[in-house]
Order: sequence, then C-alpha cells, then structure tokens
Amino acid sequence: MPDRLARPKVTLPQRESGIASTPSHGDLSDLPKLSPSRRLRRTPFSRGVEAAGVKAYTIYNHMLLPTVFESIKADCAHLKSHVQVWDVSCERQIEVTGPDAGRLVQMITPRDVSKISNGQCMYIPVVNARGGMLNDPVLIRLAEDRYWISIASSDLLLWVDGIATALGLNVSVFEPDIHPLAVQGPKADELMARLFGPQVLDIRFFRARELTFESSSYVVARSGYSKQGGFEIYVNGGGGMALWQSLMGAGQDLHVRAGGPNLIERIEGGLLGFGNDMTADNNPYECGLEKFCQPQTVDCIGRDALLAIEKQGPQRKIRPIAIAGDKVPICDRLWPVTVGGALVGQVSSAIYAPAQQVNVAIGMIDKAHWQGGTSVVVHCQDGDRPATVNEEFWI
Amino acid sequence: MPDRLARPKVTLPQRESGIASTPSHGDLSDLPKLSPSRRLRRTPFSRGVEAAGVKAYTIYNHMLLPTVFESIKADCAHLKSHVQVWDVSCERQIEVTGPDAGRLVQMITPRDVSKISNGQCMYIPVVNARGGMLNDPVLIRLAEDRYWISIASSDLLLWVDGIATALGLNVSVFEPDIHPLAVQGPKADELMARLFGPQVLDIRFFRARELTFESSSYVVARSGYSKQGGFEIYVNGGGGMALWQSLMGAGQDLHVRAGGPNLIERIEGGLLGFGNDMTADNNPYECGLEKFCQPQTVDCIGRDALLAIEKQGPQRKIRPIAIAGDKVPICDRLWPVTVGGALVGQVSSAIYAPAQQVNVAIGMIDKAHWQGGTSVVVHCQDGDRPATVNEEFWI
Repeated sequence: MPDRLARPKVTLPQRESGIASTPSHGDLSDLPKLSPSRRLRRTPFSRGVEAAGVKAYTIYNHMLLPTVFESIKADCAHLKSHVQVWDVSCERQIEVTGPDAGRLVQMITPRDVSKISNGQCMYIPVVNARGGMLNDPVLIRLAEDRYWISIASSDLLLWVDGIATALGLNVSVFEPDIHPLAVQGPKADELMARLFGPQVLDIRFFRARELTFESSSYVVARSGYSKQGGFEIYVNGGGGMALWQSLMGAGQDLHVRAGGPNLIERIEGGLLGFGNDMTADNNPYECGLEKFCQPQTVDCIGRDALLAIEKQGPQRKIRPIAIAGDKVPICDRLWPVTVGGALVGQVSSAIYAPAQQVNVAIGMIDKAHWQGGTSVVVHCQDGDRPATVNEEFWI
Repeated sequence: MPDRLARPKVTLPQRESGIASTPSHGDLSDLPKLSPSRRLRRTPFSRGVEAAGVKAYTIYNHMLLPTVFESIKADCAHLKSHVQVWDVSCERQIEVTGPDAGRLVQMITPRDVSKISNGQCMYIPVVNARGGMLNDPVLIRLAEDRYWISIASSDLLLWVDGIATALGLNVSVFEPDIHPLAVQGPKADELMARLFGPQVLDIRFFRARELTFESSSYVVARSGYSKQGGFEIYVNGGGGMALWQSLMGAGQDLHVRAGGPNLIERIEGGLLGFGNDMTADNNPYECGLEKFCQPQTVDCIGRDALLAIEKQGPQRKIRPIAIAGDKVPICDRLWPVTVGGALVGQVSSAIYAPAQQVNVAIGMIDKAHWQGGTSVVVHCQDGDRPATVNEEFWI
C-alpha cells in the first residue's frame, strides 16, 4: 500500500530528444489545441472573453479559464500598470447551508475557523486523513449557518458532501449558480468605486460585503489571485455579461481590459497553484501553510497526521527558485532538481520574467538544500540549467 | 435551497451573432489553444502521442486526453476498419483495498455488486443522496478485498475517501500509478494476440485477466469506450512507452495507429459522456441506466431518492437525435430543444456523421416528446435546425 506522503515520483532527467513539442510561452503558435465540449464548461462571461480576443485557456474545475490575451508578458505588464477584468468563474463555490454547516466546515480544515465573522474570508487548507492537501480554498461566511467555499481545481464538493452524507449531517452541500469576476490591478479601486460607489473602498483585505449596482446585488470581496490588489465579485449566472460590459465601459480611460491569472506575476508573487505546486502528496507544512494549521486546538480530519508532521517538522519546503541560462520551455511536468547529481527536489511552475531578467520558478526542495543561496541544477525537458534557491519570492 | 434534481438551466436561444468562435469540428485551425501546465497532467504515453502527431486534446481527470490525430472523420473511419492504440491514462483508477472494501463499494452504487467475482468488470452508476449522478465508472474486482474503480471525469476519489474517512472504515483509498491503454477496432484481437498470445482471446466481454508480455505483467480487460471491440491494458507508469512501441511495431501490417475516443463513433454508438450527457442534475433512470439500479435490494447512498424516482418513473430520457440541415458547429454548450416554441429538452453532444449523412446527437427529452419519430427544433449557437427524436442509436 503506497505511502501517500511519500515523495512523488520524480525521476532523473530523461532528455526527450527529437520531440517537437516543447514550446516556450513566448510562442503561442506552438501551443496544443483544445477540443471544446459541454463538459469543459463555458461561463456567463465567455462571450466577453471571446470578443476580447482570448488566445488560450486552461481547464479548471471542468471549466474554461482564459490564460492569455495579448501575451503572458504583455498581460503581466498591463496587470501591473492598469486594471483587468478576469473571468474566474472556474473558482466554483461550494455552498454549505444548515444547522451543521459550521461543524462541517471545521471538520474539513486544520485552520481554526471558530471565530470567523459574517463577511469574513479565510484561506483554508483542506487535507485528508493523511494530511495530504485536497484543495486550498477561500472560505467566506455569508451568515451564521451559511458558507461559500471558493475552490481551487479539484472536486472538493465530493469530499464535503461525502462526509456530510456519511455522517447524516443536517446540512445542504451544493454548487450554487455563482461565477466570480475578478477586478485586479493598481487601478482596481478606482474602477470599482465608479460602479459600486466609494463604500467599496471601505472593504478591507479578505472581507466581503453585499453591494448593489444597477439594482442587482453582488457579494464583493477584496481578494484575488494576484499581488496587484483588487476585488472579486460573486456574480449570479444571469447577470454576467451586463456587469462585464459595465466594467469595460466605465474603465476605458483606465485602460481596463480582459485578463486572467498571470503565470509570470503569480510566480513572482509566490502564489501557489493547487495541482501545480502542491497535490495530495504534499502536506500544508511543506507548502508553507503552517500558519493556517492549528491541529493542537482544532478537531479536524487529518489532525493526528498533522500533529505528527508538525512535531517532526517538514522535510522539504516550497521555495522560490531562480533558474539561470536560456529561457525555460513550458513547465508542463515536474522538473527534477539535483545537487551533485543527487535528487533534492522538483520545480513545478516556471517561466521567464522580463522584469527580473531570470526564469522565475516555484519548487519543493529538501531540507538539506532549502537555504537561500543554495546552488542547484534544474533538469528541464530541453536541457539542464544552473539555478539558485531563493529565500523570498520576487514581489 | 435549490432542488438538485430540477431541470438544469437551459434558456431559449440567444443567437450569438458577431461572435467569431463557433468553429465546426472539420476546421481544426479554429480550435482554441490550451496552456499546458503540470496541473494538466502528461501521461507515460505522451511522448508517443506527440510523435504520432496529436492535433488536439481534451482535459479529463486533470490529465491530457488526445481527441484528434488526422481528423475526427478520418480517425473514425480508421477506427472502424483497423486498430488503434489509445492513451486513456485519464481513466484514473481508485484503488479500494482492505477488509471494508466490499462494503464501501456497495455503499456507493445502487447496482448489486455482491456477486462480482475476481476479474469481473461491472459498469456502476454512482449517485449522491439525491440520486444525482456523480460518475459512471467501471468497477473491477482484483481480489476479495481489492477493487479498482476506473472513473469518468470527476474526482470520485474524494467522494469515496470522504465517506471512508467519515465512517472510519478499515480500508485504504488511493490513486495507484496505473495508466490504461486501450486497443480498439476490428483488428484489436489480432494485434493483442500477437503480444499476449491466443489466451487473450479467451477473455470475455467485461472480464479481466493478468497477462504477461516481455516479463511484465498487466491486467487486461475486454472493454473500451467504442463499439468496435477491443481491450484495455492497465499499465504501470514505468513501462508505458515500451508497451506502446511494441503495439505499434507489431501492428504495422494491421495499419495500427494512435487514436482516442472518437466523437462521431461514440455518438453513433450511444456511449454517454459524464459531464457532457449527464451530470449531478441527472438521475440514472433518465440516463437509461435503470438496469444498473437495484435500490429495492441494495442498501446504498441515494437509495430513498432512487426508490422515489423509480416509482414515479423518469420524466425525461436520454435519446438519440438526428439533426437535419447544415453541419452543426461544435457542441460546447447545451442546445435547447423545442416543440412549437416550448422547451422540451436539450442536446449535449453532436457532430456530423459522414456514414449517416446527418448530424448525430445525444440529448435529454421530456416524456411527452421522447417517442421515436417526434419532430423537434434544435437551437445551436449559430442557428436553428429541424431534428427528429430517434428510438435507437445508429450503431
């Protein structure tokens, strides 16, 4: 029986010579094509995204997530200077409603959520009985017995509903018809105030409030998957395109345009991607999420495993890694990291960052080598590159 | 609180005039692009797939699934004449092992699995407490206390492990390092016999056996997601490419080549796609899976809901639909189906089938209109087309 906390299988470099398909992110024409189907769900904003000239997607929670409009590089520069509207409908909500809602929410996370107030957001690791990460969602309390869990890409609803069903909890667990729209960038405050009034600026980080625009009401949170600041608007399916067009119309002089989570910016900022940088093979401590774990005081699934991990201390950790040499190809697989020929870790996300003039990367590095300044070798599918483990992310 | 068994939201036609992106499946150049990342997992056969000139993918269980090599039309004709090797690694396995394995497996399906024998495969609907479909996997019993659940595209592991964890069952639930390779087509028997010997031909439909090739042992089942016959080989990650190359090498005179589940052939054959043709909004009775439901005798999750649905009878059903008129665009969203302007159903999968000289489709039609021969109108994103509800699928 496999140990689910064992090191994921990373084998030493198998150079894939003669394989044509290792495009870099600069060369969109080499990207593979996607076969659309109903199973890869469109969103209420898809028409706006298409009209804005989307160039590529990823699939996230069985849904289309736009990744590129002009180019990853140009999208990044624009995000850091202006304001973007992102179709992040794929951040699906799990609604948990009913008398046992609070109990169920606390069961699924080692973070102490007992003091969450209405309108508060909390980033919560969700782990299995072995302490392995199942998702890293944002929890929002809408009312005393009503929560949304805004999920990363795994069907966490099945976990939450499976537990509720098995235990016969008095709670309803379902995916509501809610589609988040993110407004991100340094001019996000200005654009949002034009639609929702100055009161939107009173929303503190990771707090949500119900606001009205053109007689529709929206939950608005100060949050988002970038380091540039901004908001996430939780939109009912029906009203999607009207709000999209209002934002685009009101922000013309702010150079507003469509965007999406940006690979350069998220790596520079150290924003982890579930499924990329962490999976069920990882515990929250090695993901740097120890401040969101209180297994001493919280009675949750995975408690015993987390107590043991906490006691021993993590044996490897997420680290920023600066990869020197040529621009890296697309990081579509784990890249082994070695020191003196011995495997000491893996890179899981990487791209060339023009602002840093280096390939920025996120990896998981063994304890003996995770100190800032350590020299390592990263084995990409097209060749090896010298690299340095950093202490801090770039932005 | 929404009724999860209520009709999914299908609104009447909103013609999307001026939107450039309604490509047909014949025109691959118009397909959107996919941003690769580690989260969209490669497989042990990806190098072979790339070398074979894959033209498009879908994402299935967070993994790359090739959809097109030459063209959907040419791939279909080849599949019906020769033999193809499919990288269906995305049919992930859930391994359920331990003293409570049998109990857990019966809890998750209304199909009576008490008489399953070692090496037997069973197609099992998995439903939630409301009777909504969560997945439609194939169950294989490997040993008395050891099963694989070979899943469609949803993280069913979270459901199964959530239930096991909540109840404290004595069972281990995990995703093993197993990657199925399908060998499909009329010459599949011949090709498989060349590798595994004539004993492979003794495997009956939906039975599995452990066979050896070049000193590696594989679970081989007579199964697959086509109507052309063939096998699925359950491959340990490590040995993937060697087996792929052996199959390609041994079948040259049989015109073996890479392929994948074919959209034309699966619709002609009435093979449902979870997430396309059925979701948690559907119960197994309306999906035509009543023969796999024994809620009277089986004590499973969803039993009460299924008993009620069975008593009332389904109010709508999966039906083959022949869509006349121009070739349909890509069916990337639900198409409303109307009679006299009133909504009576939806189409969820469709494509032009050269052999039938008609657009073949799978839809869900209300009871009053599901009889074979009923005339309906199907509202695609690029226009309306007359259509006929059929009694039987095409092949």
